[in-house]
This record gives sequence, structure tokens and C-alpha cells, in this order.
Amino acid sequence: MRYLVIYDITDDNLRTAVAETLKDYGLQRIQYSAFIGHLTRVKLNSLTVDLKRLIKDLVENVQLYPICDTCFKGRREVGKQKRYELKEKDKIAYF
Amino acid sequence: MRYLVIYDITDDNLRTAVAETLKDYGLQRIQYSAFIGHLTRVKLNSLTVDLKRLIKDLVENVQLYPICDTCFKGRREVGKQKRYELKEKDKIAYF
Repeated sequence: MRYLVIYDITDDNLRTAVAETLKDYGLQRIQYSAFIGHLTRVKLNSLTVDLKRLIKDLVENVQLYPICDTCFKGRREVGKQKRYELKEKDKIAYF
Repeated sequence: MRYLVIYDITDDNLRTAVAETLKDYGLQRIQYSAFIGHLTRVKLNSLTVDLKRLIKDLVENVQLYPICDTCFKGRREVGKQKRYELKEKDKIAYF
């Protein structure tokens, strides 16, 4: 199933850790605080566990929405997608 | 249909204008840059027009995803939702 993951995290280090975790699960960044991609049930459960370990009892928030094919086809977009510059190891990657 | 609207807007004034527009359409804020709520097709079309007028050709981004009941039931949340303080007229509203 495709999942849209959105987060609202104030702490810079935690936000980076969450973004890196989402990338580790193969999700693609579509906005600064939003990723999308396919997750099996096993990976979704594992990701949820990993996120809980990161967020603990902090007032920080991550939401995961399944997006079925019908919903995905109905999406709309206004404006342009940005390019997110992230330092990865010694190079700068744009994606 | 229920819609999840997420935005990635750098310009402070534009971001505020987009948030106010989404509130005008009856959507509820669930994260700093995410709203959710029901929109008829007519309201969705109108909202899209309003957002295009705001965003113009700027490199700013808004995405609208329909979330059917089945998808909505499958959502997961990690952490706590924040309270967003917004000045509305002369009072401060928390929601």
C-alpha cells in the first residue's frame, strides 16, 4: 500500500532523524515535511515502531495515511515542487 | 470527499494566506502545514482556483489528496498533536 507520511516536528535533530528514517524505508520526499511511497504491512509496522522510539512522549507529530490507487489518481497539485538539498556523506544530493 | 491538503510554502505571508483560505473552506488544521476536511467537487474546484491565484508561478507547493473512508480508517499517528496559536481579529484562538 502507498502511504503518505506527514510530520510536524519542531526539534531540528529529531526532524532530520525522522526524515532519514523515512528515506531508509524507501519513501520519497515530496515536500519538506512530507514523504510518500509503498510500504508492506511488515515495513509499516516496523516504521511505526521506529518512529515511536524517536518521538517518545514529545509533543511532536507524525501522521501516516494509506493512499489507495483511486485516491492517488484524484490528487491535485498547485505550484511547483521544490528541490531539497541534503548533505549525504560528502556530496550534496538534490532530489 | 475528505481531502488532506499539505503545503510547503517558504514565504510567510503567502503561507498565512493559504492557511486562512483552507480555514475559509472549513478545513481543520491537523499539523502546521496540513489541513483535512470534506469538500464537495464544487468547493474543491473553487479552492484549487483560489490556490492557483495565490501561488501564481512561484516555487511554492500545495498538494491535495482525496482520502476515502477506507484510507482514513487506516491512518496511523505517532506522537501528539500540537496546538496552533493563531491571532484571529483581537483574540488568540487555540485549535
